[in-house]
This record gives sequence, structure tokens and C-alpha cells, in this order.
Amino acid sequence: MSLTESAGKSAPHIGLLPNGPRGTIADVEGVTVGHCTLDQGAVQTGVTVIRPHAGDPFLAKVPAAASVINGFGKSIGLLQVEELGVLETPIALTNTFSVAAVAQAQIRAAIQGNPQIGREWSTVNPLVFECNDGYLNDVQALAVSERHYNAAFEVASVDVASGSVGAGRGMSCFDLKGGIGNASRVVDVAGQRYTVGALVLANFGRLPMLTIDGMPLGRVLVERAAKAAAAGSAAFAHPANSAASANPTVSTNPALPATTAKPEQGSIIMIVASDAPLDARQLKRLSLRAAAGLARTGSVYGHGSGDIALAFSTTYTVSHESDFVALPPVLADARLDPLFRACADSVEQAIVDALWSATSVTGRDGHRRQSLHDTASDLAQLLKQSS
Amino acid sequence: MSLTESAGKSAPHIGLLPNGPRGTIADVEGVTVGHCTLDQGAVQTGVTVIRPHAGDPFLAKVPAAASVINGFGKSIGLLQVEELGVLETPIALTNTFSVAAVAQAQIRAAIQGNPQIGREWSTVNPLVFECNDGYLNDVQALAVSERHYNAAFEVASVDVASGSVGAGRGMSCFDLKGGIGNASRVVDVAGQRYTVGALVLANFGRLPMLTIDGMPLGRVLVERAAKAAAAGSAAFAHPANSAASANPTVSTNPALPATTAKPEQGSIIMIVASDAPLDARQLKRLSLRAAAGLARTGSVYGHGSGDIALAFSTTYTVSHESDFVALPPVLADARLDPLFRACADSVEQAIVDALWSATSVTGRDGHRRQSLHDTASDLAQLLKQSS
Amino acid sequence: MSLTESAGKSAPHIGLLPNGPRGTIADVEGVTVGHCTLDQGAVQTGVTVIRPHAGDPFLAKVPAAASVINGFGKSIGLLQVEELGVLETPIALTNTFSVAAVAQAQIRAAIQGNPQIGREWSTVNPLVFECNDGYLNDVQALAVSERHYNAAFEVASVDVASGSVGAGRGMSCFDLKGGIGNASRVVDVAGQRYTVGALVLANFGRLPMLTIDGMPLGRVLVERAAKAAAAGSAAFAHPANSAASANPTVSTNPALPATTAKPEQGSIIMIVASDAPLDARQLKRLSLRAAAGLARTGSVYGHGSGDIALAFSTTYTVSHESDFVALPPVLADARLDPLFRACADSVEQAIVDALWSATSVTGRDGHRRQSLHDTASDLAQLLKQSS
Amino acid sequence: MSLTESAGKSAPHIGLLPNGPRGTIADVEGVTVGHCTLDQGAVQTGVTVIRPHAGDPFLAKVPAAASVINGFGKSIGLLQVEELGVLETPIALTNTFSVAAVAQAQIRAAIQGNPQIGREWSTVNPLVFECNDGYLNDVQALAVSERHYNAAFEVASVDVASGSVGAGRGMSCFDLKGGIGNASRVVDVAGQRYTVGALVLANFGRLPMLTIDGMPLGRVLVERAAKAAAAGSAAFAHPANSAASANPTVSTNPALPATTAKPEQGSIIMIVASDAPLDARQLKRLSLRAAAGLARTGSVYGHGSGDIALAFSTTYTVSHESDFVALPPVLADARLDPLFRACADSVEQAIVDALWSATSVTGRDGHRRQSLHDTASDLAQLLKQSS
Repeated sequence: MSLTESAGKSAPHIGLLPNGPRGTIADVEGVTVGHCTLDQGAVQTGVTVIRPHAGDPFLAKVPAAASVINGFGKSIGLLQVEELGVLETPIALTNTFSVAAVAQAQIRAAIQGNPQIGREWSTVNPLVFECNDGYLNDVQALAVSERHYNAAFEVASVDVASGSVGAGRGMSCFDLKGGIGNASRVVDVAGQRYTVGALVLANFGRLPMLTIDGMPLGRVLVERAAKAAAAGSAAFAHPANSAASANPTVSTNPALPATTAKPEQGSIIMIVASDAPLDARQLKRLSLRAAAGLARTGSVYGHGSGDIALAFSTTYTVSHESDFVALPPVLADARLDPLFRACADSVEQAIVDALWSATSVTGRDGHRRQSLHDTASDLAQLLKQSS
Repeated sequence: MSLTESAGKSAPHIGLLPNGPRGTIADVEGVTVGHCTLDQGAVQTGVTVIRPHAGDPFLAKVPAAASVINGFGKSIGLLQVEELGVLETPIALTNTFSVAAVAQAQIRAAIQGNPQIGREWSTVNPLVFECNDGYLNDVQALAVSERHYNAAFEVASVDVASGSVGAGRGMSCFDLKGGIGNASRVVDVAGQRYTVGALVLANFGRLPMLTIDGMPLGRVLVERAAKAAAAGSAAFAHPANSAASANPTVSTNPALPATTAKPEQGSIIMIVASDAPLDARQLKRLSLRAAAGLARTGSVYGHGSGDIALAFSTTYTVSHESDFVALPPVLADARLDPLFRACADSVEQAIVDALWSATSVTGRDGHRRQSLHDTASDLAQLLKQSS
Repeated sequence: MSLTESAGKSAPHIGLLPNGPRGTIADVEGVTVGHCTLDQGAVQTGVTVIRPHAGDPFLAKVPAAASVINGFGKSIGLLQVEELGVLETPIALTNTFSVAAVAQAQIRAAIQGNPQIGREWSTVNPLVFECNDGYLNDVQALAVSERHYNAAFEVASVDVASGSVGAGRGMSCFDLKGGIGNASRVVDVAGQRYTVGALVLANFGRLPMLTIDGMPLGRVLVERAAKAAAAGSAAFAHPANSAASANPTVSTNPALPATTAKPEQGSIIMIVASDAPLDARQLKRLSLRAAAGLARTGSVYGHGSGDIALAFSTTYTVSHESDFVALPPVLADARLDPLFRACADSVEQAIVDALWSATSVTGRDGHRRQSLHDTASDLAQLLKQSS
Repeated sequence: MSLTESAGKSAPHIGLLPNGPRGTIADVEGVTVGHCTLDQGAVQTGVTVIRPHAGDPFLAKVPAAASVINGFGKSIGLLQVEELGVLETPIALTNTFSVAAVAQAQIRAAIQGNPQIGREWSTVNPLVFECNDGYLNDVQALAVSERHYNAAFEVASVDVASGSVGAGRGMSCFDLKGGIGNASRVVDVAGQRYTVGALVLANFGRLPMLTIDGMPLGRVLVERAAKAAAAGSAAFAHPANSAASANPTVSTNPALPATTAKPEQGSIIMIVASDAPLDARQLKRLSLRAAAGLARTGSVYGHGSGDIALAFSTTYTVSHESDFVALPPVLADARLDPLFRACADSVEQAIVDALWSATSVTGRDGHRRQSLHDTASDLAQLLKQSS
């Protein structure tokens, strides 16, 4: 299943690097993903679990590092990842107020697998990321429970769905339906071929910002909505359309665009995997390049957006008990540029995939997010025009 | 109630600065503390809540910043404190595996107070710190629930208990009984009088390191235990006494001290409050000085110890809704040295207070931590000798 | 003089926000800039000085903070800016190996103004940023001396030149001629009008990455060069044209793009000024948004690129000697999004301005960088086609 | 030559770990140190160079990382060490205003060894640390020049002098003569024996803080000075003796200690070497433990003190040109505690060594710093009494 097939329509391919066979984070050998989706009236939310390998990550810890691009977020687990450069549970994604339930589930699962935890051994570090799906989902219901984490874990496989699934069920992106997005890129470095895969939980941005492969699609959609509204049509009454009157000018006393629009309360979590041999310091460098891919879609890392990227490598593990850690030869830092590009492109592509794959969702209090495709049925033509 | 009275015995006063009237973090006007203690056989744990002011910190956020001295820890909430420089819930302390339950309680309490949270308003950032009390407490039981947080919150007052209470119930420190410690210091800066208060959750260290006001009390106790053991006495059978054979030497082929001793799996959380007018950047500087006080007690910020300090100021609050934040004139950075000293001294004193105030506790599987007083009934004399 | 006039041709206006009257960093009241350009055969380099206000910044320090996006750089002064949140000298830009000479000049100038420095008073913190202009400039000649800093300082004014001037004299950008770029944006926040200005020293990127307002101009130019080369024309023999064979594909066994191309050894310094009332913590947040503007031009923050942004506010100063610092009411963090957007747009626009304003330069060993205009005399038409 | 012999008198041995044969940083195999001392009237300063190995560190880079404990400092080079985790020049120490001259010397030396630098190759990252010796030294004279760096480099050897030499010539510490200090510790970890060595440039602290091996020697000296002053004796007229009236009290309305004393304007640079196999992330952890050793001597990381620790490992190097970096098996993080202890103890011991080894110096304007031994000829007896 290629990226474009998953979307049912042809999404633009970002950049010059080719993607892997699946076009998902599972193109990185060993990585699997599971979703548990809650779709019950006002409850539109879920859990997504990324397993870095088939084993127990507490016993075989995975080199990892994160970049906090904007720290308006309630994730748990980054403190210890920053200190030790490894993750020791699967990576979980959910909504903001379900971090606790999911962390609890991770702790219980780790104890079940390793009863020494918290007794003979040290404790385990849960790793849960979140975005706020409160527009569609009744986040106050605290509907996610431990069994939903377990359910997502159980079904993890290399067949990774994108769109309005798992933790992405209730997410919004650019005032459209957001959610889970996937992408991958393949590069040759120092005579070796490496894959970079990305999975994003996309829940950020206001429509006028939306940029796809450099094309200001958001402005086009806003303008169209404004014209439709002016023509008396209520077909497209977009909450962000006040920005359509924005009037850039270099005159000395310009009419400024409205800045009173409600700020975004979104977030994006960007998980980057690679089979390139990198240590934690290098993974931190890699993870920051997600910020470049994110920016290209129109984000300026808004105040209320928790923008966090975590990168891990699948090329070695760190045993819980051994005295020494044997690393493979790691890539020289001077050779990292192709991987940096692959990270940025994968993240940008994964955000596009989230928009492309999402289906429209109606949630609490009649709130509805239309998918990009439902918003612009002539999307392919629009992209051709605006490019 | 002075610091020394709370201990029932005279603890050494650290440094040259005087303390406030209570000798606790509540010497900083407006700060209150509540404990909920769980003492039921194998369950020896609890929750401690620090309220920075009497109001709702979500509506009136409190300037704050943290220093992660060693990030082996599972706290939640620091990401956003780092980004925004404020806290918006009370500060909660508990055991490692109860962070989730307590965070959940904070979220629910915030929603109850402000039903707009997660709907019209952004989400709330829970702030929960933890240490691992797994030696005495059956941490796998996940015994702390949301109502324990609420109970601790309800009883918060300016009468702050130290010792084997609240989150400190099951904590160990220097292989002795640890727990909650308090202290305060008063300084004059730029013609004004300011108070710095500290509350610590002390759960770190191995006995040979223990240093009180510069005196190597731990070594003395270890040596005494070794002598007692050699004399056939079982009166003092200390788990750490193998280190008693440590033999420092400058010879060319020394007998090295045993380094196979089980590493510490402890932690210390250090909460520092002040009525000095400081912004978040300055509070970060202040918080780091907790590392100096901690080091003086013998810590080298061990690998397995989550050593985290958070400082907040009570001199202004940040409204959830206003466009501007009016700060009082803040102290010039060049005037901060007395506050830095007060922070280091308060934290050192608070650790001493934790040891002084703790009572012996027996917990899961017959594990027992003796208090410092039970370990050395002749403590006053010992300190005189070793000084 | 507007941005477009300075370029002599119409550069695209980035984004929806209007710029200020000058379209330079000097649109922020009080900010002035001076250049000293060295143009002597193999020596193609210089110094640029940004004065945050007309006074002595040692006596009236300026709130400031920086984001190190990629730390392959040799700047001096950020350590103390990070700790204290102020700058206390003008900001200087130069080539990599001239940081020392310029720092020395700053020290001597500060001492001359304040003979107490290093005696009764503390020392002064020089603040010098650099990029490596070694392709055009004989950087080993260490040609910049203290008097060049002084010369740039002397001529600082609100008439700010862009292009191949000052520190920008020898810089390359996207394999084209880079250098100094300027831009500004005006926003309304909380009922007030604020200006954000940016000055960049642009010296990064390979041609295929170049993206202007979302348009992949670099790819277009590379393809044209490849066609010209194939047609036997030597008119455009670009060092980067090997990348023209890049062949993006989603087939299962793709021909990968060449990744052996010499990595960039560039850098970009992004100085952001604002008259919005922000403290140092907020300025750090603002400075990071430069990364978004940078990414939109095609950068992925390459390994060898020192990508650093520094932001300062002109709304208050910090006296060297006073006990307290009186801040104006600062903007609430929740109101910062328009400023974040202004920062990203200003930085992107300033990079475009650097390319637009630069003139072709021939330097050491016959190395030559063509300006964008000399490379594509039909630039206006190209942009129209590719958009 | 043991540590104690170098001082001519017996300095207390800090902690339980044994030191290496030399008691200096050169106990770490391959490390050498050279000093160049300027002793000419008002010019009392110098340069110290630490070579991590006998080769060219540009070609064989050395894994390294730093902790900025307090960033009131003007060092150069840390930006790139933080990003890339290596150093590529010798480490240089000098006075605050000579950083530029020494950095220039490093650049020139690197170019001389590798003419490709700044041409075919990237630039070189100078690494220069500083303290302010302005009390004794006419720092405004900018007396250090490039040849002094070269001279220090030339004489680097395993015979490492401590005291009033090299960069330590004009430094003050606890209002006494400070300067260069050395120490080492040996530990067994995971069946292997490792050495940690420290070299400090000690220039911080006020006398009342001075604590040696837990003994409040500073208070004793201040009290003695106060008594002598009261007795009409001018024998000990110490600039810090106003603090002798400090009066700690727990009464409700205490007479507070004077806090108007001039704040310190010192700094300490702590260089930590080890032959333990550690990567850059782990070296960052190690370097932070210098803060514990520093705190034990009485420091609270004063506002005006640039307190910086850098750690490097000698067990592998990173080639400038290769595609991959082969690391030896590195120690598991869970095994680092003995090294953490060795770092803290070495740094504390090295500070004691600086005081012990220093000789009294008279510098600019008749300023004089007495050595500890000249201040307390009965030092051995004093230490016995106060312990």
C-alpha cells in the first residue's frame, strides 16, 4: 500500500527523495504501529502505539532523543529520554487528558513483563505524547482507559493506517480534519542505504496558513469561502474566514490583517524512526529537522501548540543490565545532511498524508471537522492551479 | 514552631543566614502545604500538595522555573513550565507510579473549578513530581488514588509537618528513613527583606556519603557499624556497611573501595519558594542553587536519582485571560547572591530536617528504614565529636 | 527606501503581514546598522554592526535571547546572553576567523566608554556572530581588524544597505551570492501596533533547495543549467548541477539522488528586533520562530551550518547599576502568535532580500558567486512560471 | 610527585577514593599541560593549555561535553562542542579579555597544521575558557598575545604545575590567592580501572564561604581577623572581614548578615579528563558532577561567576574525514556512579590544590592576594581544630 493509495487520491510527493515501499514509519524495519479508535458520539478520540521493535523495550532499550520546538504540552517521559538517550516503553499517543491513563497502562504492562520493576530494578519511564482534540472530542469525559492502550498495543503491525484513526480520531489540523499521518524517505549515505520514517499526530494550524508543497492552498480555500459567503452562499462558512480580508501592503499606514482570531490550541507530535546508526546526540539533531518539515506546511510553532519531535534508531539496543553498551559504528556527523533532509521531507509528507487520509468527523456538541477532500472536492485541480 | 522543635531535638543550623519564624516553606507568605499519608502494611506512601497561594493557580498563574540536575525521573509538567515560566496547578509530590493518578486528580480539579478548560479555554498542565519509595512501599500496588490528592489539598495549611508524612511516608535517604523536609532563610537585599523557603522530598543517597553541615556523619556511622559487626554485635547490621572497608590511600597500588554496591535508585525533589520579585528566568537561576545545597549533604547527583528543583515567586501572578502581564520591579541579577545562598542553605537544611523529623517505618516484605535518631541515639554527641 | 527599491526589482512579498516603511530592521525605532566592507582582491569580507539603541548598551543593557538551531558555529557571547537575558554591546557580524578581532574591538570600545570595566565593575561580554565566507574570501588572511569594527560602528544609521556589503561581502547562499538581507513586518496585538525587524547574514544552502515564497526556484535553475549543459552550452556551469539528475520516484527500487555532493559549510545569522514589550524568556520563544522562516527557503539546518537567531526588544533597558529592573507590562504569551508570524515572515523575507540585493562578487583564486539576478536575468518571468 | 608534595605541605585528601600517581589531570594517559606565565608588575596573568592527546585534535577530534553551571562568562567554543560532542583544538585557559588573542592563536595553529581549513575543509572551532583576574592583573592591558599561547603549547608535558602559574597567575579564590589546581581519582567500574583527572582555574568565592573537606575554614579565618582587628592589630586586614560580623540567629527579628558586600566577580573553569569509555552525552552527565565538588568548597555558583565544566574522554577519537565513527563499548549509564564521585572529588581536591599550591602575588595598583599558607601559617593546626 503506497502513500497515495492510502489516500485514495494522489497526494503531491514532497521533495526529491524517494519514499520506501509502504510510505509509512513501518518502512523502518521492525517498527510496528497499532491504533485503538473511540468513536461514540461526543467521544471521538483514541490511542496510537508505536513499537520500535518486536521485543520488550525495557530489556532492550532504544536510542532516542527529542526536540521540544514549542513546549505547550503535557507529554510524559521526555525528562528521562533527555538524560539517558533511550526509550524503554513503546511510544504512545493520545489526547491531552488521557496521558495519565495511558502512562498507567504502560507502567502496568512493564511490571507485568518484568516483575522486578520498582523492586529489585529501577522504575520504568512511561512515554506518552498528546494533542488536544477538545474541539471534536469531549476531552473532559476522560474516556480513554488502560485497556485502550493495551488494545492498540495488541494490534500493532506493519500495516499502518493514517487519518481519523487512533489518537488521530478527534484531531483538527488547519481548521480541517487532521489526525495520523505517515511517510518515509530513503537515502544513500556513505555507501549505505537508510530509511527514515515519520508518523505524526497532526492537530495544529489555522486554515489561512496551510501550505502544501509550497502552494498556499489555505489562502485559496479561504478566498473561495469568502467569495461564496459574499455571494450569499452558506455552503462554506468557515470560522477562519475573517482572515480572508487580510490585505498585505507596503503602504505607510496599512490596513492590518485581523489578529484577534482565536489562537490555535493545537499541537503536533512527530515521531521519526531510522535504521541509520546514530547515537542519542545525533538523534537529537535529527529530531530537530522535523521543525523544518513542519514549517513548510505553514506552522510558525504557535504559542498554544505543543510541537515535539522524537527520533529513534533501530540499529542497536541498550540492555537493561549489562555493564557496557556496544554501538555499531555510527555515521559521522558530517554525513548527516541526507538524513536531515529525509526527516524534514518525511514530516512534511506525513502532515500532508494526515490531511489526505482523514475522513470528516462530527463530534461533541455537533462540532464537525471536514476533511480536506470534503472541503475541496476539486482538490487535484486546485493544487494544479495554485502551483 | 521552629525547625528544631519540630524535630524534637536540636538540628544543626546550616550557614550564617537566619531562618524565618516557622522554619518551613510556609514562611513564604501565602504558601500552604497539605499531606495525605497512606500507612497500611505494605502500602507506605502518600501525596503532598504545595499551594503557592490561596486562589486558583489556573486563573492566577505563578511564575516558576525548574532545573533538572539529573533527569532520571518521571515527573509530569516541566515541559510547559520551561516554555511558559508559570505553574497553573498546585505542586504535587508522590511516588513514581502514582504520578498518573495524581495528575488525573489535578486535571479533574481544574476542570471542576473552570469548566471552560479543554473547551473554550486551553487545557491545564498538571505538575506532579515523584520519588521511588519502592524499598518500603509496594509501589506496584498503585495505591494512591485521586481522592488522596484531594485529601492532601483540602488540609493544606501553614502548619507544615516534616518527616515520614505525605509523599515522604515511604522514602529513604542515605539508607536511613527520609521523607519531607522543610527550611527557610531570610535575607536583606537592596534594602528589602525577603524569605526563601524550601520543601524537599528526600529519597536519595547511600549512608557513607551522608554529610551534615560538613561533618562526615555517614562515615562515622558506617565505621561504628563495622566495629559492632566485628565485635559480633548484631545491634547495627546496616545494609551499606560493606563500604566501611573503604580505604583511601595515595599509595601507588591502592586497595580500591568497593564499587559494586547497588547504586542508589532514589531521587530528590526540591521545591523553593520566595517572596522576592523574580521573573521566570531568574527563578531558573535560583532553582539551580538547590544543587549546591544538595551536594553539601553528600550527593553527587547519582545516575539513578531524579534530582529536580523548582522555584516559584509569590510576588505576582499571571492572569489566564489578560493581554498584558504587569510585573513588579524585579531584582537586578547582580543582587541575587544572597538569595542564591538562601536557596542552597534552605535546601541543605531541609534535607537535614527530613532526616531529623523522620520516624522509623516498616513496610513491604518486612523492609525497615530506621530514622537517624533511632540509628544514633547519641546523635548530638556524635555530631559534636565529628565536628 | 523600500525593500523592493533596494533590490531594483520587485521581490515577492512573503505572507499576509505588511512591512514597515523601510522594510529593514531599522523599522524598529532606535535600531541602526553600519557596514564596513573589505573589497581587495582575495579579501572579500567585512563587518556589520547592529546598534539596538543610540546609547551605550553596557550602561543600558537590552533584553535579548537566542536560539541555536544548529550549533556548527564559532560565535562569542551567547553563553552570557543565555544566563542573563541581556546584551551589553552592539551586535557584530563578521567572518568566522575574525570573531576574535571584532570581540577585541568591542572590549576596547567598552573599556574606553567605561574605564571601570574589569576594575571596579565586572567585565564586558562581547557579542560577535560569524559565517564562513571562505569560498570567496581568503579567510586565512585574517584581514579584519579592530578598526573595521569601529568603522562599521561609526557609520551606523537607519539607512540600512542589503546585499554584498559589510559582513555579507563574501557570503554565499544557495550557491549564489548571499550576504546581508533585511525585512520588517507590522502587526496589531492587543490593541497595539508592533514592528518586528530582521537582519540576516545569509550564507547557507545548495541551489537545488532554493525556495522562494513556496516556489522551487532552485530546482528550476538547476534543470535549466542541466539542459544548457546538455546542449553543449557552458554558459551556466554550476558546481551544484550534478544534483540536477535527482530523480524522485515512488517506484520500489528507485535510482536515488546523489548524496555525495559536498555538504554546505555555510551558516545563517538571524537578528530579530522588536518594539513589542517582551522579556528574555519570551524573546527566546520569538527567536526560535526564525527557524520557520529559514525552513521555508529550503534549509533543513544542514550539519555544517551555524544557524543562530537572536531576538531583542527595544522597549526597556536594564541599568548596569540599579537594584531593581522595572519592566513595562509585557505581552501575555497567549498573545504572541502574530509576533511569531512576523518573525518567521521577516526572516524569510530578509533571506529573499539578501539574494535580491546581492551583486556578483569575484574573490580569491578566481572564485565567483553570481547574484541571483545575474544567474537569471528573466527572474520575474521565472517566478511567475514556477508559481 | 604526589599532590601533597607539590604543595609542600599536607593537603587533606578529599573523600574515600584514591588518587593516581601524579595527583594531576595528567594521570589520565596522554593528557599533557603547559603553562605560560606573565609576571611583569601590573601584568600578572598567563595562558594554560591542555592537550588531550599528543596528536592534532583537528584530525583526531576528542569526545567532549560541557555543563554551564553559571553562564556569566565569555568563553568561546562551547556552542559547537554542544552540537557535535567533540573538541578539535587543545583546551586553552586565560583571562577574560585575552580570549580573543588566544582563540586567534588556536586558529592560526590549526591552519598551519592543516592548510585546508577554511578552504577545502570547514573552519576550526577554537576553545578558550576564561576567568577575570582583574584584581591582580591589569586586564585592560590585553597583555596576552598569540605567542603566549604557543609558548604554553610548546612546553606541555605530564609534569603539571599548580598554583600561581599560567592562566592562574593573577587569579583570586575566596579572597585568597587562587589559580591552577589539579587532582585525580582512580575507580574500579565493571571490572576495569579508570582514572578521572581534573584541572581547575579557580577564581571564585569570598572568604567566609571557604570550606575544606567540610570544615568551615573561611569562617575561622574571618573570625580570627576580626579579633585581631578588634585587638588593634593590623596583621590581618582582610578586605572581606566585614562579613565577620555575620550573626546567624533564629530569633524572630534577627540582625541579618550584611549583604552589601561586593559580590564576587570570579569564575571557575573545571576541566575533567577520563580514560573511561564514554560518549558525549555521558560526558555531559559527568561534567555536571563538577558542580557537586565545587559546592562542597562553599560556592553557591554566584551571579558574577562563570562556572563551567568540560569533560573529555581519551578512549577514542573522531576522524575529521571518515564516514563512520567507531566507538569502543561505552560504559552503561547505570555504572557511572563511581565516575560521578571521582569527578566531584577530583574537582573539590583540585580547588583545594589551587589554594594549597598558590604563592602570594602582588599585582596592579599594589593589589595583593595572600596565599592560604601565608594567611594561616598554622594551617595544619587550624584544620585539626576546626575538624
